[in-house]
Amino acid sequence: MDSCVIPLRHGGLSLVQTTDFFYPLVEDPYMMGRIACANVLSDLYAMGISECDNMLMLLSVSQKMNEKEREQVMPLMMKGFRDAAEEGGTSVTGGQTVINPWIIIGGVASVVCQPSDFIMPDSAVPGDVLVLTKPLGTQVAVNAHQWMDIPEKWNKIKLVITKEEVEHAYQEAMLNMATLNRTAAALMHKFNAHAATDITGFGIIGHARNLAQQQRNDVAFVIHNLPIIAKMAAVSKACGNLFGLLQGTSSETSGGLLICLPREQAARFCAEMKSSRVGFSGALGQDGGAGDGQQAWIIGIVEKGNRCGRIIDKPRIIEVPYRGSVIGTQESSSNNNNASPHEVQLT
Amino acid sequence: MDSCVIPLRHGGLSLVQTTDFFYPLVEDPYMMGRIACANVLSDLYAMGISECDNMLMLLSVSQKMNEKEREQVMPLMMKGFRDAAEEGGTSVTGGQTVINPWIIIGGVASVVCQPSDFIMPDSAVPGDVLVLTKPLGTQVAVNAHQWMDIPEKWNKIKLVITKEEVEHAYQEAMLNMATLNRTAAALMHKFNAHAATDITGFGIIGHARNLAQQQRNDVAFVIHNLPIIAKMAAVSKACGNLFGLLQGTSSETSGGLLICLPREQAARFCAEMKSSRVGFSGALGQDGGAGDGQQAWIIGIVEKGNRCGRIIDKPRIIEVPYRGSVIGTQESSSNNNNASPHEVQLT
Repeated sequence: MDSCVIPLRHGGLSLVQTTDFFYPLVEDPYMMGRIACANVLSDLYAMGISECDNMLMLLSVSQKMNEKEREQVMPLMMKGFRDAAEEGGTSVTGGQTVINPWIIIGGVASVVCQPSDFIMPDSAVPGDVLVLTKPLGTQVAVNAHQWMDIPEKWNKIKLVITKEEVEHAYQEAMLNMATLNRTAAALMHKFNAHAATDITGFGIIGHARNLAQQQRNDVAFVIHNLPIIAKMAAVSKACGNLFGLLQGTSSETSGGLLICLPREQAARFCAEMKSSRVGFSGALGQDGGAGDGQQAWIIGIVEKGNRCGRIIDKPRIIEVPYRGSVIGTQESSSNNNNASPHEVQLT
Repeated sequence: MDSCVIPLRHGGLSLVQTTDFFYPLVEDPYMMGRIACANVLSDLYAMGISECDNMLMLLSVSQKMNEKEREQVMPLMMKGFRDAAEEGGTSVTGGQTVINPWIIIGGVASVVCQPSDFIMPDSAVPGDVLVLTKPLGTQVAVNAHQWMDIPEKWNKIKLVITKEEVEHAYQEAMLNMATLNRTAAALMHKFNAHAATDITGFGIIGHARNLAQQQRNDVAFVIHNLPIIAKMAAVSKACGNLFGLLQGTSSETSGGLLICLPREQAARFCAEMKSSRVGFSGALGQDGGAGDGQQAWIIGIVEKGNRCGRIIDKPRIIEVPYRGSVIGTQESSSNNNNASPHEVQLT
């Protein structure tokens, strides 16, 4: 499970908590703080828990930074973490900071709740569909962004992508990683989700398999569609499928929720995700842009099976366009349909 | 405060939690795990909380270790942590491990409790006495132990201590750091403690001052006695008072509780600490040795004052003898009085 659930001595309550910490992967300290917080909270959200009682922040300052660098970087990172916590309706009370060779950022999220507040991730049934709430490809986008400065790396991908596109893909990845999965968690209850997990280090297929193994029923998860940040599939192919993006093994950071939903509820789940005011879009200002909801995709089905997960032979790649075009625009269209299908029905 | 207290939405309950992580300071991985766990729990114990609902373990494996080293060291460290958690009546459910240049070990302790379960550290009154539940000098002992292999360091202290004594002092420090402050936490309720904190990185005077600043009444904490692991005061003096041990600034790890108790209760508190079956003494076996309780000392008084703390000009140094003499002895005396006074009444 993504969080641990501890039964308490008090009136049927449980303590649900999780911790996560890692090293910076984007250059913007403020965004890195937001991403770290979104990543910690995501483990609660994956269990359908949309409230958090407290967060602790875990930090290490790099001993390689001079005093000026520390004073510039660390407060921004902490502010990003705190702002994301606030967006999650919680706050950061406590934590610890040490000195370390590398910067570490992470945290602990805890909530005390009733059994009805969380959804145990074990009740998928054949006929359910699989919904994913953020596109894949964050690792590829972050790496491609670093490769722009490394000629031998850049030469491998420059035929399939421009530097401007890499910049947009990187921004898109950063915004997605900084987006809380909170709305998805709340909608899991409304649309009777049967199980969910969040997509992080093991990639979509790794987490799908983990989730399949926890099911009480004899089910298999079959993924037909892979929504991927635009051009990242091409970049992955161009460097010999380095990360296994199309095989579903590419690591994600603060990825979306993978949710098993009753088939008749899934389209409405996606529609409500899209119409809700969620998602963090820094350049669009604090209110996230009017009606700028979060895309979700139906990506697969739950079949009868042996608690395994797989991607079909030739999955449909959904190229998810960059918000790049609207960055800097104060009044963006609330139904920016661009080129990509927004709710993909499986055939 | 040593832990954060978060009021919950459920029936007057609060979530109390704390986190702490640091780098190994003793060579024995198992003992290091125990010390890390004792150190985390100590923040709860300082608030008079003797139960813990859940712990998370925070670990990093050093990238400089080869696979064999990892396989030998990390499981021992984790076992030490888990064993200490079990001794604290709790368990470790969850956590995270990363790769890092340095080893990190730490954790998170959380409990959901009623207001009556914890003692807010703000109610000291003039006339209270200050009790300390572990001797000072862990930093000096750990460093002296390292200095045995560094001739220019060893030459500074070899006139005041033998290598055998350093070894004993180091063992003593390790056992003290690995001892839970749990009994002290429970006895704080029985003897109406008014406030407490645990002694760690800021030394006895740093934490005494922090605690004084939090008081609601106009009080000052005056320390008359310094219980110190035997010979560590001499070692500290011999190297030019490097750590400020006699000034109370020497850093401690997983130190004792500093507790404000009504004067008439303090002696009984110390007596019950001594008679209870507490303390971790590895060499004495799992049961800790029959009746091998924990020493506590009355070290100072609470006066009327300006929320400050100080050590008197010539504090009495209490040389706390090593348990060294009983290590390896299965049947140790339950009232091993040695040379040191066990309950020091202030004159």
